Amino acid sequence: MSRFLRQSLTALDAYTPGEQPQDMAYIKLNTNESPYPPAPAVLQVLNREQGELLRLYPDPTGKALKESLAGLYGLAPENVFLGNGSDEILNFAFLAFGQRGAVFPQISYGFYQVYGQLYNMDVRKIPLKEDFSLNCRDYCGQNRLVVIANPNAPTGMAVSAEEIRQIPETNRDSVVLIDEAYVDFGGESCLPLIREFDNLLVVRTFSKSRCLAGGRLGYAFGNPELIRDLEKIQYSTNPYNINRLTLALGQATVEAEDYYRALCARIMESRRWTKEQLEALGFAVLPSQANFLFAKHPGIDGLELYRQLKQRGILVRHFTSPEICQYNRITIGTRSQMEVFVNTVKQILSGGAYENL
Amino acid sequence: MSRFLRQSLTALDAYTPGEQPQDMAYIKLNTNESPYPPAPAVLQVLNREQGELLRLYPDPTGKALKESLAGLYGLAPENVFLGNGSDEILNFAFLAFGQRGAVFPQISYGFYQVYGQLYNMDVRKIPLKEDFSLNCRDYCGQNRLVVIANPNAPTGMAVSAEEIRQIPETNRDSVVLIDEAYVDFGGESCLPLIREFDNLLVVRTFSKSRCLAGGRLGYAFGNPELIRDLEKIQYSTNPYNINRLTLALGQATVEAEDYYRALCARIMESRRWTKEQLEALGFAVLPSQANFLFAKHPGIDGLELYRQLKQRGILVRHFTSPEICQYNRITIGTRSQMEVFVNTVKQILSGGAYENL
Repeated sequence: MSRFLRQSLTALDAYTPGEQPQDMAYIKLNTNESPYPPAPAVLQVLNREQGELLRLYPDPTGKALKESLAGLYGLAPENVFLGNGSDEILNFAFLAFGQRGAVFPQISYGFYQVYGQLYNMDVRKIPLKEDFSLNCRDYCGQNRLVVIANPNAPTGMAVSAEEIRQIPETNRDSVVLIDEAYVDFGGESCLPLIREFDNLLVVRTFSKSRCLAGGRLGYAFGNPELIRDLEKIQYSTNPYNINRLTLALGQATVEAEDYYRALCARIMESRRWTKEQLEALGFAVLPSQANFLFAKHPGIDGLELYRQLKQRGILVRHFTSPEICQYNRITIGTRSQMEVFVNTVKQILSGGAYENL
Repeated sequence: MSRFLRQSLTALDAYTPGEQPQDMAYIKLNTNESPYPPAPAVLQVLNREQGELLRLYPDPTGKALKESLAGLYGLAPENVFLGNGSDEILNFAFLAFGQRGAVFPQISYGFYQVYGQLYNMDVRKIPLKEDFSLNCRDYCGQNRLVVIANPNAPTGMAVSAEEIRQIPETNRDSVVLIDEAYVDFGGESCLPLIREFDNLLVVRTFSKSRCLAGGRLGYAFGNPELIRDLEKIQYSTNPYNINRLTLALGQATVEAEDYYRALCARIMESRRWTKEQLEALGFAVLPSQANFLFAKHPGIDGLELYRQLKQRGILVRHFTSPEICQYNRITIGTRSQMEVFVNTVKQILSGGAYENL
């Protein structure tokens, strides 16, 4: 830290992203990426013509992609905001709508806490139930920015749109942000509620189900006034926030919807299989509607399992906070990756030797 | 604006970027893009392998690109920060280092004013001299964030590194940010001063001389402590701020240095030619070290010239503030684009018909 840094930022604890080894030597089940490449038609975007156009700024309004997304989900382009990953949108939303403070589950995406601190907000964190499920009633009448990841991370557990409805209904004077990063793996979207509530913002990403974590593209749906507020922040910080190639990749992705639906089905099937295997090995595995499982075993400490897996070439995500430190979050990879993972876990549990890679 | 927007943001005037028509029908001399495509080796980056890797998050540390940039400019990777365009870096720098307020020239890049307002800063704007040149002495001992674009925009006029030296020297307790977006077209860089001053931050971009406006990539050089402050903000807002393809394109760009130096020489030669032509037509043209000219004509109003050029298929940039509203900022395109531009201006001045496209 330099002596020039703004006082209010000196104590800020930045977010710690999952490990991103650049050498590709691991089976990488730690940051909820897709194990599958983007659709062939999406890869076609990376051609000479697009490359030459890189000399020009991108369209700061993202018009074409907004129209595609609006078309896909049956809303209007005015309902859509585009961000450099959904993290950027979360950041903007905390800044825009957090004046009265924020409330979110005590166990959820760790970045919410960072945004709250960054904007010096009065943050309320509500514990999950003992089984890690979320009680939507806890978020009624909070009169501040409500942020719910649905499905939640790192638990993977989801609530229905009908349960969520009561939150925007009872917080009419504050924004309710539903973070649907993982919704395509079996969750129920709140998009249909957008027309009903002017205070509902649904945030999504191309990083998980759309195999584009490396492209950085997120989007949000909401009332046009909320969208304009987010755009005001975009135009006051970085108008050209999304690069040309990502805009083009995003549009091709929307057009390849069937490909991605099929991939989600495969991941959900691998999740079902992996959960079954882990349970057979004695793991407690939370019911996940996301592209990961959150699991613990009575016979091995969470951190120890993480370490032993890493030694054996498999990265999963371990969190150190006491309520969840016995668990690991395991991204669902390909079926064969999950077979290697399950076999490796078996060896670790039986104290066996490493011979699986 | 929604009723949910944070009070402090309601009066914010966002930056207005130059027109970005998506139909490509114009000769586009309005946003200082390069008229030339990226180097062939850079376009090679857009291949199937890179496309498939898009499923994975980018390296949030940007290690490889930092090493390349550090190597090219003879500094260390710890001296380098990477941003999603240099606008993002300017935004972070105003947030990080603007606690005591900011000072910049009254006529300069319009975004500085927006950042100052966004962070509710005490902003001091110092008029340029009557000939639009910048007096570095004005910025001595200001004891607040000093921001100087060198060359300046939209004038194109530059000051020497030796003149700038007195600014970090006399503002030891605040950061001096030199925005070198246009330095590669004949300006003198302050990079050699980085080793001397722990309060100097030099910000640059791949958007102009590196033909990558559509890729969104900026970088800053400074003391490692300043860099870590900027990274703290990156990790508190959007750790994966630069997408995979842009990181790879950036690295290939650094490796194609000779190609870009040659392009800069061509642009400078077209600038010399265009200035000569405009002066022969009676224009007053400021001495530019950037990839644009700032010019006015006693016989035609600035806005009127802008409008007539646009009608004839040529976009230039006009600013409405009274000190400069007689001028237009004309990006230097290819030589043949500049020939069309000069001929069109001739026709407009002589009231002639439009027959040049």
